[in-house]
Amino acid sequence: MSKVGVIMGSTSDLPVMQEAIDILKGFDIEVEVDIVSAHRTPEKLFEYGKKAHTNGFKVIIAGAGGAAHLPGMIASLSPLPVIGVPVKSRNSIDGWDSILSILQMPRGVPVATVALDGAKNAGILAAQIIGTSDKCVLDKILVFKEGLKQKVIDGAKDLKK
Amino acid sequence: MSKVGVIMGSTSDLPVMQEAIDILKGFDIEVEVDIVSAHRTPEKLFEYGKKAHTNGFKVIIAGAGGAAHLPGMIASLSPLPVIGVPVKSRNSIDGWDSILSILQMPRGVPVATVALDGAKNAGILAAQIIGTSDKCVLDKILVFKEGLKQKVIDGAKDLKK
Amino acid sequence: MSKVGVIMGSTSDLPVMQEAIDILKGFDIEVEVDIVSAHRTPEKLFEYGKKAHTNGFKVIIAGAGGAAHLPGMIASLSPLPVIGVPVKSRNSIDGWDSILSILQMPRGVPVATVALDGAKNAGILAAQIIGTSDKCVLDKILVFKEGLKQKVIDGAKDLKK
Amino acid sequence: MSKVGVIMGSTSDLPVMQEAIDILKGFDIEVEVDIVSAHRTPEKLFEYGKKAHTNGFKVIIAGAGGAAHLPGMIASLSPLPVIGVPVKSRNSIDGWDSILSILQMPRGVPVATVALDGAKNAGILAAQIIGTSDKCVLDKILVFKEGLKQKVIDGAKDLKK
Amino acid sequence: MSKVGVIMGSTSDLPVMQEAIDILKGFDIEVEVDIVSAHRTPEKLFEYGKKAHTNGFKVIIAGAGGAAHLPGMIASLSPLPVIGVPVKSRNSIDGWDSILSILQMPRGVPVATVALDGAKNAGILAAQIIGTSDKCVLDKILVFKEGLKQKVIDGAKDLKK
Amino acid sequence: MSKVGVIMGSTSDLPVMQEAIDILKGFDIEVEVDIVSAHRTPEKLFEYGKKAHTNGFKVIIAGAGGAAHLPGMIASLSPLPVIGVPVKSRNSIDGWDSILSILQMPRGVPVATVALDGAKNAGILAAQIIGTSDKCVLDKILVFKEGLKQKVIDGAKDLKK
Amino acid sequence: MSKVGVIMGSTSDLPVMQEAIDILKGFDIEVEVDIVSAHRTPEKLFEYGKKAHTNGFKVIIAGAGGAAHLPGMIASLSPLPVIGVPVKSRNSIDGWDSILSILQMPRGVPVATVALDGAKNAGILAAQIIGTSDKCVLDKILVFKEGLKQKVIDGAKDLKK
Amino acid sequence: MSKVGVIMGSTSDLPVMQEAIDILKGFDIEVEVDIVSAHRTPEKLFEYGKKAHTNGFKVIIAGAGGAAHLPGMIASLSPLPVIGVPVKSRNSIDGWDSILSILQMPRGVPVATVALDGAKNAGILAAQIIGTSDKCVLDKILVFKEGLKQKVIDGAKDLKK
Repeated sequence: MSKVGVIMGSTSDLPVMQEAIDILKGFDIEVEVDIVSAHRTPEKLFEYGKKAHTNGFKVIIAGAGGAAHLPGMIASLSPLPVIGVPVKSRNSIDGWDSILSILQMPRGVPVATVALDGAKNAGILAAQIIGTSDKCVLDKILVFKEGLKQKVIDGAKDLKK
Repeated sequence: MSKVGVIMGSTSDLPVMQEAIDILKGFDIEVEVDIVSAHRTPEKLFEYGKKAHTNGFKVIIAGAGGAAHLPGMIASLSPLPVIGVPVKSRNSIDGWDSILSILQMPRGVPVATVALDGAKNAGILAAQIIGTSDKCVLDKILVFKEGLKQKVIDGAKDLKK
Repeated sequence: MSKVGVIMGSTSDLPVMQEAIDILKGFDIEVEVDIVSAHRTPEKLFEYGKKAHTNGFKVIIAGAGGAAHLPGMIASLSPLPVIGVPVKSRNSIDGWDSILSILQMPRGVPVATVALDGAKNAGILAAQIIGTSDKCVLDKILVFKEGLKQKVIDGAKDLKK
Repeated sequence: MSKVGVIMGSTSDLPVMQEAIDILKGFDIEVEVDIVSAHRTPEKLFEYGKKAHTNGFKVIIAGAGGAAHLPGMIASLSPLPVIGVPVKSRNSIDGWDSILSILQMPRGVPVATVALDGAKNAGILAAQIIGTSDKCVLDKILVFKEGLKQKVIDGAKDLKK
Repeated sequence: MSKVGVIMGSTSDLPVMQEAIDILKGFDIEVEVDIVSAHRTPEKLFEYGKKAHTNGFKVIIAGAGGAAHLPGMIASLSPLPVIGVPVKSRNSIDGWDSILSILQMPRGVPVATVALDGAKNAGILAAQIIGTSDKCVLDKILVFKEGLKQKVIDGAKDLKK
Repeated sequence: MSKVGVIMGSTSDLPVMQEAIDILKGFDIEVEVDIVSAHRTPEKLFEYGKKAHTNGFKVIIAGAGGAAHLPGMIASLSPLPVIGVPVKSRNSIDGWDSILSILQMPRGVPVATVALDGAKNAGILAAQIIGTSDKCVLDKILVFKEGLKQKVIDGAKDLKK
Repeated sequence: MSKVGVIMGSTSDLPVMQEAIDILKGFDIEVEVDIVSAHRTPEKLFEYGKKAHTNGFKVIIAGAGGAAHLPGMIASLSPLPVIGVPVKSRNSIDGWDSILSILQMPRGVPVATVALDGAKNAGILAAQIIGTSDKCVLDKILVFKEGLKQKVIDGAKDLKK
Repeated sequence: MSKVGVIMGSTSDLPVMQEAIDILKGFDIEVEVDIVSAHRTPEKLFEYGKKAHTNGFKVIIAGAGGAAHLPGMIASLSPLPVIGVPVKSRNSIDGWDSILSILQMPRGVPVATVALDGAKNAGILAAQIIGTSDKCVLDKILVFKEGLKQKVIDGAKDLKK
């Protein structure tokens, strides 16, 4: 079965990253959460990144803020698709540092970057990736998208009343 | 077999997007290239997006510049993972408009954004996504990463001479 | 009689967009409000955009935030003038993403962009557009501008006291 | 018959603004071009703005760069819809000053802002505004949009060859 | 005797601009305060600007926010030195629009721009300008600067305790 | 007689700063040019700043780029009005560093900042300051402004031909 | 024994700068705190900077906000390594002015810049500099880094519970 | 004897980084140059960072561009002072990504950041750090600073001729 790793540099990122965990669980996808800091636990970072693809992970979601090196370093170490969530942390400059230090990866080492604090979308993207080979997950995404639509249509109806 | 769609808003984006096509072909992954403009061919956009997942595509790579709506609109229409390439086109403001209008998607509809003009990384990311269910592609990525490393090591040797 | 469509991507944009509705009503111009999401209800977007000019609309005001595609996609689908209101929504980066993804439209498909959260000005602009062929509305705008002036002059008088 | 005024602060803005003139002429709309500088000819600015609506103009297109005050001051003086073209002039800071000083108008006095150097779109928008009361112009816009579409489709065909 | 004009686009700018008034009064310089809106009272703007130098003013301090045209338009109309105060008003984008639309004046028409919300410094600068021909004011500035120094030295002493 | 000091951090700033010198000479105002580097000749900076007002200067124009400290430090040392010219030097980040490190002076110590590379306007502003007490210079500024106007009017005539 | 000077432009910067003082004391490094304002006490600045290396200091940490000239001017005056802390003070534009006016020093005069409000890191960096010649301090830094690691590992354990 | 490590992510950074090497050699400080890529040679990065302080290095200078992780990761792994040089590489967005991903390090792990492409200053800073415990190097810095001053004074003399 497919497993998604959700990691972040600090427990203070958890309120943001929880949305990724929740949406993945909603799709019945196995999630393993961990704290891995590129700057404070480089050995754990190394171990995690080098072994992720042999440890049953299919996708890694990594959230970090400021000079955010976690997503890029995991992408350096692992052949798996890595989704980066720029977190607008306390010391970030309105999120610009978080975005640019995750998005602007050099040729050869991509990070799939989502919007600032966009952990929910990171979870959906991970599900979509798994859905490329798992018809059941793909169907759930189609249902999910139908739900998004219905909510807007209901909102429009309420407005017209 | 897995197929990746590479689309762009204008033939003027082809020099940038060619890197995605080339790297995917280097991984022996089937690529289908097309011009789809969100702003000038909305019907084609609709048709393309709605049917991509039943037309054999596993991943869509969409490149656009300025107020870049192509990646986000394909993500709106398709359950597949969509990779967005912000293109620093002639009328773009140093690429900031391209980046922000692709990256900052609302909750529910992710686009996996890569660096400005980062089409090569978009191709690698598409390969990594396919690699989540195709051991052969995963192995090629491991080899590719080994090649990146070797090139740096050779460069370091040359420097020391 | 002339009708203005005021649409937005989410009911959460209503507090901002209400100013457009109010000012238009103040000019006795018919307004039809709807929720249309480019990313969650693409079919409705399509239907709305394609038929707006045959449905009695003269101008469309579209508000959206973040990677804001609603104004541009309506402009893609409709021959009518489209006024875009960049909304500083919860997930927007200080409004920069909203502005750039509405303003920086490619050649051929304009969006008349107003200031961040500038829904009131969007309403006035729609009235001015209608005023180009409706002498009565033009006169109301002249009166409205006189009112703006008087308020400043009264403020200056109060200050001098 | 409807007439569009195209004004700019300096003859050095003409290469950018010519696109507005050309597209309007292509729609058989009368254009009157003039140089009006907010900062160097304030009296002419005043005269032009106060009388534009009684001088047969339906829409004013104003282009300016840097601390660009021309569009906003015309909008202050005239009840007509004013379209602002931010010009990336020699002394502009990558166009940011031009954009912000045109776009961010206060409540009560809108300027319909188009993309940086987006004079072509300013011309199309002026045509769309005239098209709200002139069926013939509206039809030309529909034909124009069809032309945009065809060009993309032809480009896609060439690519597939 | 020398008189400084302090004007602003709206009474809502008064809390910021009051600092200019207070410091000038502290230097015993005559101040005349008024509300002049470039966008809402263009005739008053014109009148004010054209006659300022014959009405006894030596320097004009003009504060405005967003697409701030007041300082630049007064500088267009008057031969006097104009000091512009970019105000971080409610609708301003963190003050960037206010700064750029005041600072980036074209060749030929300068505005002496001070820091965002820097009305106090605008007042001091006006005093320094008057001090170029009024020995008494120059001496007061020397005393004022001595006061700034003493306050820091006292703060350092307190810290050491 | 009034004298203006024009200083810059490096001879490489001279091509930009020459415009200030030329315009001042055109107004028959005495100019004294010098190289003073805040970072490389702090003693000269100190000497220059402390004595400027007793050395016959009425106004100081200081140009610098990058982390530009020259205008602010002269303003710290002298009671004279200091005009800062942000120079877009080779190592500047598009001029943003030059602008912000000159403009954003703390309360108590103003620098009259002009546009990026706006040395010509710095010269005009210095003349305007001298014009506050020298009727002859004020008259020259009125003539200069008339010249600006005439040039635009001539350009408009050429365009109409 | 090695001594670190911690200076700031105003007592209002103390809450930010206190973190540098605390961490240095935690490493048992002598700290001397002072208020030195580049703009209000230029003589004290001069005195401090010229004599720092003969007054027993090894490193200077200077914090300032807005147009922050303190770190750069100390670096101009002293041969010691100067660490600059950009402070997001009340009048700063989100810290961008503080960062750019400290970071972008010209060739020849470096300032070791740390993150916005990064006084703690300034203190650690000062300790690392002292650690290059003081084995005891180097060992404390190794212990400190071990502590950072342990805290993350404990957080990860708590999360897994 | 003290040794400085100068590393960069790619040989394409060498033209920028050469300035650090040259200035250090000018101070007779031993330099060891290497290519270490955080994203392509993570194992070498690890090895280099973990052993730098036991391999005779006193300071590490690390240059990188875009999402620049090299300086921060070395700072994570080593107790030595790390100087980061943001390189304006081909794919960088005007250097903003390079600056922010080096400067904005989290609490606990500082990087001494210098100006964009500021390798020369990185070298001088490294020398200053060594100078804190090496009187001979400190004296050379004093001489170097004297040279900077003399060059400005000579430039000023040439100008006056």
